Amino acid sequence: MYDLIIIGAGPAGITASVYAARKRMNFLVVTKDIGGQTAWSGDIENYTGYQFISGPELTAKFEEHMRTYKIPVNEGEEALEVALRGGAVAVRTDKASYEAKTAIIASGKKARELGVPGEKEFKNKGVTYCATCDGPLFAGKEVAVVGGGNSALDAALQLLKIAKKVHLITNADRLTGDAIMQEKFIANPLASAHYKTAVSEIIGNKFVEAVKIKGEGKEATIPVQGIFIEIGLTVNTAFIQSVEKNERGEIKVNCHNETSLLGIFAAGDVTDVPEKQIIIAAGEGAKAALSAFRYLSRLR
Amino acid sequence: MYDLIIIGAGPAGITASVYAARKRMNFLVVTKDIGGQTAWSGDIENYTGYQFISGPELTAKFEEHMRTYKIPVNEGEEALEVALRGGAVAVRTDKASYEAKTAIIASGKKARELGVPGEKEFKNKGVTYCATCDGPLFAGKEVAVVGGGNSALDAALQLLKIAKKVHLITNADRLTGDAIMQEKFIANPLASAHYKTAVSEIIGNKFVEAVKIKGEGKEATIPVQGIFIEIGLTVNTAFIQSVEKNERGEIKVNCHNETSLLGIFAAGDVTDVPEKQIIIAAGEGAKAALSAFRYLSRLR
Repeated sequence: MYDLIIIGAGPAGITASVYAARKRMNFLVVTKDIGGQTAWSGDIENYTGYQFISGPELTAKFEEHMRTYKIPVNEGEEALEVALRGGAVAVRTDKASYEAKTAIIASGKKARELGVPGEKEFKNKGVTYCATCDGPLFAGKEVAVVGGGNSALDAALQLLKIAKKVHLITNADRLTGDAIMQEKFIANPLASAHYKTAVSEIIGNKFVEAVKIKGEGKEATIPVQGIFIEIGLTVNTAFIQSVEKNERGEIKVNCHNETSLLGIFAAGDVTDVPEKQIIIAAGEGAKAALSAFRYLSRLR
Repeated sequence: MYDLIIIGAGPAGITASVYAARKRMNFLVVTKDIGGQTAWSGDIENYTGYQFISGPELTAKFEEHMRTYKIPVNEGEEALEVALRGGAVAVRTDKASYEAKTAIIASGKKARELGVPGEKEFKNKGVTYCATCDGPLFAGKEVAVVGGGNSALDAALQLLKIAKKVHLITNADRLTGDAIMQEKFIANPLASAHYKTAVSEIIGNKFVEAVKIKGEGKEATIPVQGIFIEIGLTVNTAFIQSVEKNERGEIKVNCHNETSLLGIFAAGDVTDVPEKQIIIAAGEGAKAALSAFRYLSRLR
């Protein structure tokens, strides 16, 4: 019986694990990957203390920090069910079953799909959800980014460093996201924004060759070799049914990171905390670990 | 009329300022100092991304980050009054008066005094509240640390690297704070803990020469040249009267960092957020800035 099981190892889960280690808790981290969305992020300029760092670099720093504490991490293991059973938290994964007195859900979010013809067919053949991971494959090529918020702009700005041309395709009538990113995008002569426009189909042969768009009565086909889908995220919560969630499927937490289930805490982007930011997720992870620790102290 | 005035430049205020700059807000930071309690901290091992960094080093990273964004900071300026006046926030300092649409209070905490004879008399003549700042003055000397929690242990561990002997004097019957720090302290042959013991007087001539202690019916005089008072902190909120506070004088905030006053937000150790940690304060500062930004968007 563990004191604590942490599901996920993004900024929230990793910070929670550092705090749990410092409190000498008997715990385990179960996670599909290390870094979560941070690993796919481009340039990060708002993680206080690092003026400028890439997502993969910050992920490496996080992982190093975790390794220093010799934290037990089961990487590549996926949670299938987390539930309260007989006063304890039962965790079933694709590899094993565990029992713990408490759990912290920090499983984050994953990319939302567009749902148009060609998307599934050309996945990893030109269709991607991660500019940081796959951007370098499109050096000198013409690409499209779908979306108009911060992650779309982040993807577009990354691609503008290497691509021949970057089309931004957005439903909205203007860009959203940080003003500083909008300005950088607009100032770049290789950038082209298509407003009030939707993707209707992704076409190609073996690989993506073009994207069909539709906007204000007009239709067009833009020749592109890559299409980056950045239309938002969905929560990774399929494994936890009984907990209270909001209308976006995010786990509801109070200011102490408690969920509706006693002994189950949650932190980071999987929760209904309004702002999804690395520094906020890290802070929430610390709070969740300290809340779990306080809860355990009361149990004893 | 500013969009935002941030009071304080510790981890919460600095992170808020970075977020405000990225949102291109018209704002000002008014602060007594840079770094707040982080500047006085010893070894920091739980700010995710930095496995090991000293308080002054992390403060320098924070300050650098702020300088990159050319954030307008009035350093050495003290807030004397913050209040709502005619729908705006009126801020009066020891140097000027300002008006803003919103404010973030991130003024943190300062060291609590012991209140015993000799404390005021020997302040900066052996009596200190900051092991990081003043510790080096006591190399090779015998010193006392008053307190038994994390900050007392942090001070004691710093001093154990240079002092001849370190006495820890605590009211409690055991140490509290992180297990990892307790273990380090107990394992050190130069460390001596006095439990259930209070300081009754600090004595000396020009400088501190000894500390009188009283515990379980016994009295003793320990010869020390330095005495580090680490018995906790009090909030810096004298300048804001009308806002709702808890029984410890901390400003009450909801999960969006809103206070009881419309347009006034608060973040970090000055608030009633249960855990006082650098990474948590930074996350809360980001949340407060984004909440203020959202509030301003609704105003327009």
